[in-house]
Amino acid sequence: MDFLLNCAPFSAKMALIVQKYGGTSVGSLDRMRNVAARLKRTRDEGNQVVAVVSAMSGVTDGLLKMAHELTPTPSERELDVLVSTGEQQSIALVAIALESIGVEAASITGRQAGIFTTGSHTRGRILDIDPTLMNQLLAEDKTLVVAGFQGVTPSGMIHTLGRGGSDLTAIAIASAIKADVCQILTDVDGVYTCDPRIVPNARKLPEISYDEMLEMASSGSKVMQSRSVEFAKKYGVIFEVRSSLNNNPGTLVLEEHPAMENVVIRGISIERSQARVTVIGIPDAPGMSGRILGALADAEINLDMIISNIASDGFARHSFTMHSNDLGKAQAALKPVLAELGSGAKVETESGIAKLSAVGIGMRSHSGVAATMFKALGDAGINIGMISTSEIKIAVTVDERHIEEAARAVHDAFKLDQEPVA
Amino acid sequence: MDFLLNCAPFSAKMALIVQKYGGTSVGSLDRMRNVAARLKRTRDEGNQVVAVVSAMSGVTDGLLKMAHELTPTPSERELDVLVSTGEQQSIALVAIALESIGVEAASITGRQAGIFTTGSHTRGRILDIDPTLMNQLLAEDKTLVVAGFQGVTPSGMIHTLGRGGSDLTAIAIASAIKADVCQILTDVDGVYTCDPRIVPNARKLPEISYDEMLEMASSGSKVMQSRSVEFAKKYGVIFEVRSSLNNNPGTLVLEEHPAMENVVIRGISIERSQARVTVIGIPDAPGMSGRILGALADAEINLDMIISNIASDGFARHSFTMHSNDLGKAQAALKPVLAELGSGAKVETESGIAKLSAVGIGMRSHSGVAATMFKALGDAGINIGMISTSEIKIAVTVDERHIEEAARAVHDAFKLDQEPVA
Repeated sequence: MDFLLNCAPFSAKMALIVQKYGGTSVGSLDRMRNVAARLKRTRDEGNQVVAVVSAMSGVTDGLLKMAHELTPTPSERELDVLVSTGEQQSIALVAIALESIGVEAASITGRQAGIFTTGSHTRGRILDIDPTLMNQLLAEDKTLVVAGFQGVTPSGMIHTLGRGGSDLTAIAIASAIKADVCQILTDVDGVYTCDPRIVPNARKLPEISYDEMLEMASSGSKVMQSRSVEFAKKYGVIFEVRSSLNNNPGTLVLEEHPAMENVVIRGISIERSQARVTVIGIPDAPGMSGRILGALADAEINLDMIISNIASDGFARHSFTMHSNDLGKAQAALKPVLAELGSGAKVETESGIAKLSAVGIGMRSHSGVAATMFKALGDAGINIGMISTSEIKIAVTVDERHIEEAARAVHDAFKLDQEPVA
Repeated sequence: MDFLLNCAPFSAKMALIVQKYGGTSVGSLDRMRNVAARLKRTRDEGNQVVAVVSAMSGVTDGLLKMAHELTPTPSERELDVLVSTGEQQSIALVAIALESIGVEAASITGRQAGIFTTGSHTRGRILDIDPTLMNQLLAEDKTLVVAGFQGVTPSGMIHTLGRGGSDLTAIAIASAIKADVCQILTDVDGVYTCDPRIVPNARKLPEISYDEMLEMASSGSKVMQSRSVEFAKKYGVIFEVRSSLNNNPGTLVLEEHPAMENVVIRGISIERSQARVTVIGIPDAPGMSGRILGALADAEINLDMIISNIASDGFARHSFTMHSNDLGKAQAALKPVLAELGSGAKVETESGIAKLSAVGIGMRSHSGVAATMFKALGDAGINIGMISTSEIKIAVTVDERHIEEAARAVHDAFKLDQEPVA
């Protein structure tokens, strides 16, 4: 456990800490003063700090509203120029708040932070970071306040990074400046074994592996966007999800270490408002699946679970889950495909379902996990619809009306309310 | 007059025109739509256009107010980062408004425009412009919308350019991209022989020389800041002051040409709320003037007229004019100096005076100008206080209560309401 000791926040002297504050945390001048006070405290404890901040909540929406009043289809290039001003205002104001309490600070735009991006406007991807200026200002012992969510292309065009972009900025910067720890300060206390509003005895996790976090994120646990976690995993950036409202330790997200496998299930996530589409009567011939999946992809429908098998009549059937908002679009996309598949093909749909996912790397080395889960649901009288598994996840669909009961039953079955025994 | 024909707006085909719009012109989405429509019209007439825009009126003040709520003394570095977002929002919104009416547009920040600055934060000076990106986008036939009032230091720190900064941006860009004409669109129709609110028969000037414009600006005619005019003179940028509300031709500001000397007085400007400070009983010894002026400069008092002579008693006396708001500060600054000058020295002050300046390059080749002016004031029964002259200006102080009458008398004496005879 050397590893954990090395990266526990505040344990090391003169650690370099990146702290990310979201739009709510800097949503007013008073809240900015709170952020400044917290940054000062972290400094006073002997650390250097780089804050990554979002736009004040409401500012981005206000700017977008103006753009859409001018035209329903503003260009994404100009939207990036427009909305990136929100973060730029935040960094200046937080830096001023810091200076007003005697902390030498410097605001840093995405461009000044050397965040180079690629990809499309409004959803840029980080290509590279040139931390020269940040390192120079850190050497002068300044506290830095960096604009989240933004960067520039190598030719100097402004990009925003899309949803969750400020988390991504924080993690990427932590990597570039070799920070000792990266804290994502948010309105939750950390990552829980399940949503505490649904499972009252859910427990805050002290740590979770990148892969588990990714499975939780893609299964409806909306603490962070997947790509920030993927970026952190790729560059080995340990980060901590913790509350901006208190000083409780949060949840460390990091590469798995052997002791983590002792826990079979790390947590449970649920996703509501799912729908199922099943195409039946598909001739068992090459290219059919590709044709169906291609039509749904062309319609920009995100599929979640995908299951297919051969029925006793020799025809194949494919089932997919998706957000129920996409159901109509999926039916329309499949119509021309059905005609090609022949007269026996048809589409069945079901909405009002929800997905429950149990996630844990310990699953790889423990048997009987699925059996425990299915028995718990059966004992609670809950029918299981589709099942899909990955190496570290078992997901099932259930009637949406039973999803909370299902979550509690599975949480209890794996005793997730109790500290695991070492 | 080849010169004038070459640079008259709209006369040339495919001219490259820079148009500057102030904060009032882009003060609402509707006004931005008007600006976009005007830019489109200029384009439809066969020109390429680069718009330079300010922040929406009110936005800059709102941002400054937030900063000052955090602390009475926000750092100027952060103020620049903060307020430069105002222009950045304007350029994106105007570009969107252009695109919404079918004009291909691109917003350009000060940094993207390659505007490199030096000097202090909140009052940067333009060092150089690298127009590479602008030229590239113009070659793609885009209409450019450039953020006024901002630039970056060679190391990438954001600077704002201080008062009148957007005019300066427009003129500097016109120079850098070799524009055919630069139009400063404002809420006045052009430069007048005198303020039409005071002299109802004042006439709009078709042209004025840089030097005359500078003298007018420094004498209270607040159409433009002096440094924008100085920059234009230095780089030979011809610009036109015209109204953003109509299509009337405005006033061309340009290097003097021989025909301009036919006019003795181009215009009259007045400045109210002036005060006079006279130091009497100064020993006639070296260093005394420097001591007095140094004390006033240290107190950051802008002196306007400075007159000194030796009185019959052998002691020197110095008189200065300044804004009456500075009077108290000047008295305080002179107190310690008086003690050094000896027991005979004392300070006399007078407030409630105003300055009238008659400006014209024709003065250099015409005699009797001062005589005509003093006679006109005398005939009107107006006492003259201090007198100061430059090569192209005669300035006098009068009792502030008589300044409007004085302006009308001098305007009539030089027949400024009439077109000059060629």
